[in-house]
Amino acid sequence: EQKQSSGEAGNEDIQRLLFLQVALSPPVIRGFLSSHQHLRAKETLMGKYGDDSKLIYELQDQGGELLALRYDLTVPFARYLAMNKITNIKRYHIAKVYRRDNPATTRGRYREFYQCDFDIAGQFDPMIPDAECLKIVHEILSELQLGDFLIKVNDRRILNGVFAICGVPDSKFITTCSTVDKLDKIPWEDVRSEMVGEKGLSPEAADRIGEYIQLHGGLDLIEQLLQDPKLSQNKLAKEGLGDMKLLFEYLTLFGITGKISFDLSLARGLDYYTGVIFEAVLVQQKNNQVEEPVSVGSVAGGGRYDGLVGMFDPKGRKVPCVGVSIGIERIFSIMEQRVKASGEKIRTTETQVLVATPQKHLLGARLKLISELWDAGIKAEMLYKKDPKLLKQLQYCEDTGIPLVAIIGEQELTDGVVKLRVVTTREEVNIPREKLADEIRRRLEPCSLSVQSCLTV
Amino acid sequence: EQKQSSGEAGNEDIQRLLFLQVALSPPVIRGFLSSHQHLRAKETLMGKYGDDSKLIYELQDQGGELLALRYDLTVPFARYLAMNKITNIKRYHIAKVYRRDNPATTRGRYREFYQCDFDIAGQFDPMIPDAECLKIVHEILSELQLGDFLIKVNDRRILNGVFAICGVPDSKFITTCSTVDKLDKIPWEDVRSEMVGEKGLSPEAADRIGEYIQLHGGLDLIEQLLQDPKLSQNKLAKEGLGDMKLLFEYLTLFGITGKISFDLSLARGLDYYTGVIFEAVLVQQKNNQVEEPVSVGSVAGGGRYDGLVGMFDPKGRKVPCVGVSIGIERIFSIMEQRVKASGEKIRTTETQVLVATPQKHLLGARLKLISELWDAGIKAEMLYKKDPKLLKQLQYCEDTGIPLVAIIGEQELTDGVVKLRVVTTREEVNIPREKLADEIRRRLEPCSLSVQSCLTV
Repeated sequence: EQKQSSGEAGNEDIQRLLFLQVALSPPVIRGFLSSHQHLRAKETLMGKYGDDSKLIYELQDQGGELLALRYDLTVPFARYLAMNKITNIKRYHIAKVYRRDNPATTRGRYREFYQCDFDIAGQFDPMIPDAECLKIVHEILSELQLGDFLIKVNDRRILNGVFAICGVPDSKFITTCSTVDKLDKIPWEDVRSEMVGEKGLSPEAADRIGEYIQLHGGLDLIEQLLQDPKLSQNKLAKEGLGDMKLLFEYLTLFGITGKISFDLSLARGLDYYTGVIFEAVLVQQKNNQVEEPVSVGSVAGGGRYDGLVGMFDPKGRKVPCVGVSIGIERIFSIMEQRVKASGEKIRTTETQVLVATPQKHLLGARLKLISELWDAGIKAEMLYKKDPKLLKQLQYCEDTGIPLVAIIGEQELTDGVVKLRVVTTREEVNIPREKLADEIRRRLEPCSLSVQSCLTV
Repeated sequence: EQKQSSGEAGNEDIQRLLFLQVALSPPVIRGFLSSHQHLRAKETLMGKYGDDSKLIYELQDQGGELLALRYDLTVPFARYLAMNKITNIKRYHIAKVYRRDNPATTRGRYREFYQCDFDIAGQFDPMIPDAECLKIVHEILSELQLGDFLIKVNDRRILNGVFAICGVPDSKFITTCSTVDKLDKIPWEDVRSEMVGEKGLSPEAADRIGEYIQLHGGLDLIEQLLQDPKLSQNKLAKEGLGDMKLLFEYLTLFGITGKISFDLSLARGLDYYTGVIFEAVLVQQKNNQVEEPVSVGSVAGGGRYDGLVGMFDPKGRKVPCVGVSIGIERIFSIMEQRVKASGEKIRTTETQVLVATPQKHLLGARLKLISELWDAGIKAEMLYKKDPKLLKQLQYCEDTGIPLVAIIGEQELTDGVVKLRVVTTREEVNIPREKLADEIRRRLEPCSLSVQSCLTV
C-alpha cells in the first residue's frame, strides 16, 4: 500500500511536524543557518557511502542529466561548502532524505524520512566546536525528556592507535573499524570470529583489541591510557587522547560529563570520520539493580570529518567539520508511543479562539468579529456554516483543543460586548468588544511560556 | 553550473528561508495543518496537468516501482484526502516541487522551487471558505508590504455561461478558457485571432466574448450581469453570479473589497477549477496619472476545485475544495531586490548575545558563562578560539548583527558580575551574573514584538 511504502504524510506525520517545530525550537539550536536541496547531481553522491550507494534513488535521464535524490544531509553540505568556497559556517538542517530500501515502518524505517543535522565547519582551536556539538545533543535529549541517556565518545585516531599497537596492518584499519562497530549488536565472540575469519587478523591481535575496546570511563581512563606504555608511543593515539582530555575539560565546564562516557568500543560505520566520534543511546536500568545501564537504541550520532569537503574541492582544499545527526524519526516514534500511552491529546493547530454565535442569522456578525481578531493578530477560527448550533461550535473546541470561545449574539451586539468563554471551566465573561483581542492575549499568556500546557488539552 | 541549474541552497536561499519563517508566521496562516511528501507514484501525477505533464521528473525504475517527484502541492493533497477518506480539513503546506523545465533563475524560475499552498476541503455553506482564502491572500500581501496589489476574481461558471450565450459549443469551453487566459500577456486582437483561427470559433462569437471579458468592477457589475437578459437565462452563469454576490458581501464584512476586482477576463490555465477563481497581481500607477493600474505580475492564484479529490477516490466520492498558491519565489525575489536597494542588512541568525573575554586564558570562563546562558534559554554564541582579541569579538557582532555582548574578564570574575555591552551604542553596564539572562531578555523584549527591528541591524 502506498501509505506504508513511501512515508506518506498521514495524520501521524502532521503530528510529527508539530513535535518537530516544538521540540527543536530556536533556544535549542542557536546561531545555526538552515539550507535545503533535494535534487543532486548523481556524481556528487557516488563514492561517498560505500556499499550503501545501492540505496540511492536515481532519476530517469529525461534530458541528458544524471540526477539522484540526496541520501543524507552531510555529503550535500560538504559539496556546498566546497562549491561556494565557504571556509567557516555553522548550520542546522531538518529535511527529508531518500533511501531505496525496504521500508519497515514499524521500526521507524522509511524510504523517505527526516534527518536533522547540525554541523560546524571551519579551522578553529581544538575541541571547542566538538564540545558544543555534545552540549547540544545533551540539551536536545534532556529537553525532549526521552528518559535516561548516555553519550558515548571515542576518537578514530585512538582506535587506529589501538589497532596499530595490536598488530593490525594500516590497510585493515577501516575494515576492522566496521567490525568493531557491530559490538553493540552482536557479542564480542562473534565480533572476534569476524576479525579472525573474514578480516584475517591474527587471534592474538583480535584478543589484544578485545582488551582495549571493553574499556570505558571518563578522565581517569584517559589519564590511564596516556600512561599506557604502548599506546602513548603511538603518535595518532596520543593526539587523540590529548584532544579527548581537552574535550572532557570543556564538557566539565558545560556540566554534562555525568552523561558522557569515553568508550573505546564506539567505532561508527561511516568511512569519512577522522577524529572524535560520538553516539547517544537511550538507556534503561536492568531490573532496578546497580548494574550497567542497557542501551535501547541510538538516537543521535556524529563526529569529526576533516576530509570530506576536500573531496569536492578542485584543489583539494580541506575544511575541517564536526557534526551531529539527530535520529528524529526514532525520537518521534518514542514520543508518539509515550503520548499514546499517557492518553494525552496533542493539538495540531495553534488556534486561540473560536468565534461563535448562539442564534441564527448572525453570520455577518461572526465574519466581522473574526476579521477584527485576525487583524489584531489573534489566531481565530469559525465554523464554515451559515447558522451552526452553539453546541456544535462548543463541541468543535472540545475536539480540537481550542481554549477560548468568543460568542457574539444579539444581546452582545446591542451592548457592544463579546462573551468570552473558557472551554475547560465553562466560565463566561462579557468583554467590551474593543478590548477583546488584548483580553485573549492576556488569558493565553502563560501558554507562550509553557508549550506543554498549550498543547495539552 | 550546478548552482544555477538546480536551485542551489546558496546564501540567498538561506535568507529566503528566513524570510519564509518571518513572513509566514502563524498569525497569518491560522488553524491550518501542515503536511509533506516528495516521492509520488507516477500514476498519481499523470493526467492532471495536461501538456505540462512532460515537465514531471520521473525516477529510474530501480526496483519495479514507477515513481516521480511531485509537480505541485494540490494534486498530492487531493490524493491524500481520497486515500485517507478525509472529508474535512484545512492545511497549509510550504515545500519544494519539481519541474523538468529550463531554469531561468533571473526570472525566479527554478527546476526545484518552493510553493506555499493553503486549502480548505469540505462540504460547507457557499463562499465562506472562499472568502477566507481571499482574506488570507489580502493579509499576506498587506503584511509583506510588496506595494499596491489587486486581487482579480471570477468564476468558471460565469465564464462558461458567457461562452454558451456567445455561441461557443460546450466541447470548446476548456480550450476557449485557456485562450482567454492569455489576455494578460497578449493583446485582445491576438487572443481573438487565436479564437477564430486555432480554436475555430466564429468571428461573431469571438467579438461577443470580447465585449464581456473586458468588463470588470464590483457589486455593481454583478448586479448589472444579473440583469443581463441573456446571461441571466444561463443556469451556470446565474449560479456563479449569485455566489459572486455572496462572496462580495462577505468580503465587504472583511473590509477588503477595495483591493478586489470582479474581472471577467480572468480565466486561469488549469483544467480542474470548477467555481470561483482568483489571482493577485502587483500593480503600479502609470505615470502618476488617474489611469488604470498596470499589472506587474501575478503573486498568488487559486480557486475552487470540487472534482479533483473524486478522481482519486475509487468510488468517485467528491470533496469540494478551495485553495490558494502563494508565489513565494517571486515574492522573495521582490523582497530581496527591495532589501538590496535599501542597503538594509538582514540577519541570518537569532543570536541574542556573544560571550566574550577581554584577556587571555579565559576560555574556561567563557565556556562556563555560555553554558549558563544556554541553560537559561538565551541564544548565545562565542568564537571558537582559545584567546580571541576583544576587537575581533566585537567585530563579529557588528558583522552578524548580534545586538549584545556579555564580557567576562578577570575583574568581572572577581566581582561576580558580567559586563553587558550594547553593540550599537557601545554602552556598557555591569550586571550581577545571576541576573544576566533576565537582563538580556528584558533588553531584547521589544524585539519579540517587532520582527523588523530585530532583523534589521
